[in-house]
Amino acid sequence: MDQSDLTKVSARSWQLSERARKLTSSAIREILKVTERPEVISFAGGLPAPSTFPAERMRAASDRILRDAPAAALQYSATEGYLPLREWIAARHSGPGAHGNVRIRPTQVLITTGSQQALDLLGKVLVCPQSPVLVETPTYLGALQSFSLYEPRYVQVPTDDAGLIPSALTPDLTAGARLLYAQPNFQNPTGRRLAVERRRALAAFAQQAPFPVIEDDPYGALDYRGEPLPTMLSMAPDHIVHLGSFSKVLAPGLRVGYIIAPEELHFKLVQAKQATDLHTPSFTQRIVHEVVKDGFLDTHVPTIRALYRDQCAAMLAALARYMPEGVTWNQPEGGMFVWVQVPAAIDTMKLLEEAIAQHVAFVPGAPFFANEAQHNTLRLSFVTVPPEKIDAGIAKLAALVRARI
Amino acid sequence: MDQSDLTKVSARSWQLSERARKLTSSAIREILKVTERPEVISFAGGLPAPSTFPAERMRAASDRILRDAPAAALQYSATEGYLPLREWIAARHSGPGAHGNVRIRPTQVLITTGSQQALDLLGKVLVCPQSPVLVETPTYLGALQSFSLYEPRYVQVPTDDAGLIPSALTPDLTAGARLLYAQPNFQNPTGRRLAVERRRALAAFAQQAPFPVIEDDPYGALDYRGEPLPTMLSMAPDHIVHLGSFSKVLAPGLRVGYIIAPEELHFKLVQAKQATDLHTPSFTQRIVHEVVKDGFLDTHVPTIRALYRDQCAAMLAALARYMPEGVTWNQPEGGMFVWVQVPAAIDTMKLLEEAIAQHVAFVPGAPFFANEAQHNTLRLSFVTVPPEKIDAGIAKLAALVRARI
Repeated sequence: MDQSDLTKVSARSWQLSERARKLTSSAIREILKVTERPEVISFAGGLPAPSTFPAERMRAASDRILRDAPAAALQYSATEGYLPLREWIAARHSGPGAHGNVRIRPTQVLITTGSQQALDLLGKVLVCPQSPVLVETPTYLGALQSFSLYEPRYVQVPTDDAGLIPSALTPDLTAGARLLYAQPNFQNPTGRRLAVERRRALAAFAQQAPFPVIEDDPYGALDYRGEPLPTMLSMAPDHIVHLGSFSKVLAPGLRVGYIIAPEELHFKLVQAKQATDLHTPSFTQRIVHEVVKDGFLDTHVPTIRALYRDQCAAMLAALARYMPEGVTWNQPEGGMFVWVQVPAAIDTMKLLEEAIAQHVAFVPGAPFFANEAQHNTLRLSFVTVPPEKIDAGIAKLAALVRARI
Repeated sequence: MDQSDLTKVSARSWQLSERARKLTSSAIREILKVTERPEVISFAGGLPAPSTFPAERMRAASDRILRDAPAAALQYSATEGYLPLREWIAARHSGPGAHGNVRIRPTQVLITTGSQQALDLLGKVLVCPQSPVLVETPTYLGALQSFSLYEPRYVQVPTDDAGLIPSALTPDLTAGARLLYAQPNFQNPTGRRLAVERRRALAAFAQQAPFPVIEDDPYGALDYRGEPLPTMLSMAPDHIVHLGSFSKVLAPGLRVGYIIAPEELHFKLVQAKQATDLHTPSFTQRIVHEVVKDGFLDTHVPTIRALYRDQCAAMLAALARYMPEGVTWNQPEGGMFVWVQVPAAIDTMKLLEEAIAQHVAFVPGAPFFANEAQHNTLRLSFVTVPPEKIDAGIAKLAALVRARI
């Protein structure tokens, strides 16, 4: 067969799965490509500030690991993850809780290739085509992307500035649900923190619900006053599935996250992970453990908090200085995001086109809604933009909004 | 609600997805737990020999990367993977081919979290419930585990000692198939190498087939004479999906593999990976590139080949020395495995129980068959067992077989 024959049949004729035909790229991802240009002031990023990465500590840890335990760090390892790291995580989540002493067992901990994989594994193990999945309004876009591969029917749970409204979880709304997904701390995209009495109500709901409540908590350590609210895991340790990550407190490039779940679900998640990538890299798991095992986070995290708190203050000041009447936003107590509502007549997707032309970027809010979207919303991130640029960027953005009122 | 209430509802009542209810653990995995005991001579492992891991080179590479590019190595990065590594892989697979010069484009390369993730992504993107998936008889257990999450109907393609039989790919057998999965080089579990004329026939088939032919090639570099056969990718670069891995030539603990696919399928795989784990760790991808970029594999791989060739020779000699009439096995030209047939009356699952009691382990062949299993088969790996122990272990195994004839 000669070269000319090779082109006769095109890869186009290959049939894709139903789920693959529905796949779309993240709007954020496409936007980020544009905003990589240096002249753009980008509030679109969800990336932690690289200045907070403890690179020298990781360099020393990598060196020790490959000097002292090269074979173990470079060989295949258990799907559940590196036991000393699982023990550290279990201990970190154990202690005095809302209902007496909380004891999380290492046998409940599964190390994942970032929190994103935790979402994929939960979708794999819990979601069938058309099964209802409860999400906040709005919710984390990455969770929608992961769960959508398993073709659920999304049900939006009402929220307000104090987060998800537990009293809205009526039998009608929750009938047949396979899971409820929530980010109680400084949610992506809204930056909202779920009030403590609502956490209690949601934990109580979890104890009676025939499906798991997922507490996704990548930002919990980043509360600006260093006064974290109790996790729902601590309120109902056998009824909450808790997702954690080292991406925001150490470095995301290592891709190390974890799932804490009751043993029975844990076992199914381990089986699913074995089929998905066998295990998270042995080397990166050991680097994380080597860096955190002696209490490093207790001194490191406050420096991240302080940086983000100041950047957030600069953005809130700029918003107050420049934004016209009819624009509202929340006052984050932690995390990486501010959520802005512009007048209802303004579609922030169109606003973004004008902003990009002015070298300012943000993320339109619409993609964060599972169903009916609020098109007059947007997400701003302040963590990687210096204060003077925050001021200049918000001024430009405010001018564009004013021009459309 | 007091503590006693917390135990009223059990996690047991959570409903799992259809695919999760079908999930089972790998038989190999359960066996490996038993064989971790030092007194056991284990031929059950599929793990590369740790003595072949270039730990000092990786240590130096890690140090350079975290010294020179810490922010990039520790930050989120592109889902497609680290571009210089993708370029290196594309170049590695380009050059003179069976049909003139082969040019693989970096835009065809997706870095995966080990080859296992490549299998999961292909299942996600190509397989629907009940859609036919063509596999060798027997085939790689890990591929069955990955694809099974997407609930295909497996169709076994006949094989002989020269591997898959292309003439068996009749319209009846292949009707409606979403993919054909094959390991042409030193297949796991049989150690067979697909003859070159069969590669040509299968590549020609791929050019006409309405579904992709998957060429999974983790062992290709490990041919004992250092005379690799041409890949099917080189014969039909626009019609073959090629999977590669650094697990067997560098170290599996880094979990770095790749998929080479036509751009259109590549794009769907990238979207699926973004939802699955965002990207493979930036740091481990850079370590692999730093280690391989200057031609290190050209001097390193021959040392692995020589080690495995000698270990294989020791096992073949021991099999010839001890095994009774009626036991047959192949003569691998590379890779990590020997495939053994014992008399039809012997079920190797039962044989394994006796062998474990005698402190010898192997992997029964049955789990490697998608449908009807041959229960009188077993897989032996020789790569991590010193020659004298190979001799002692095979002697014990032969005695057990003889006792059952």
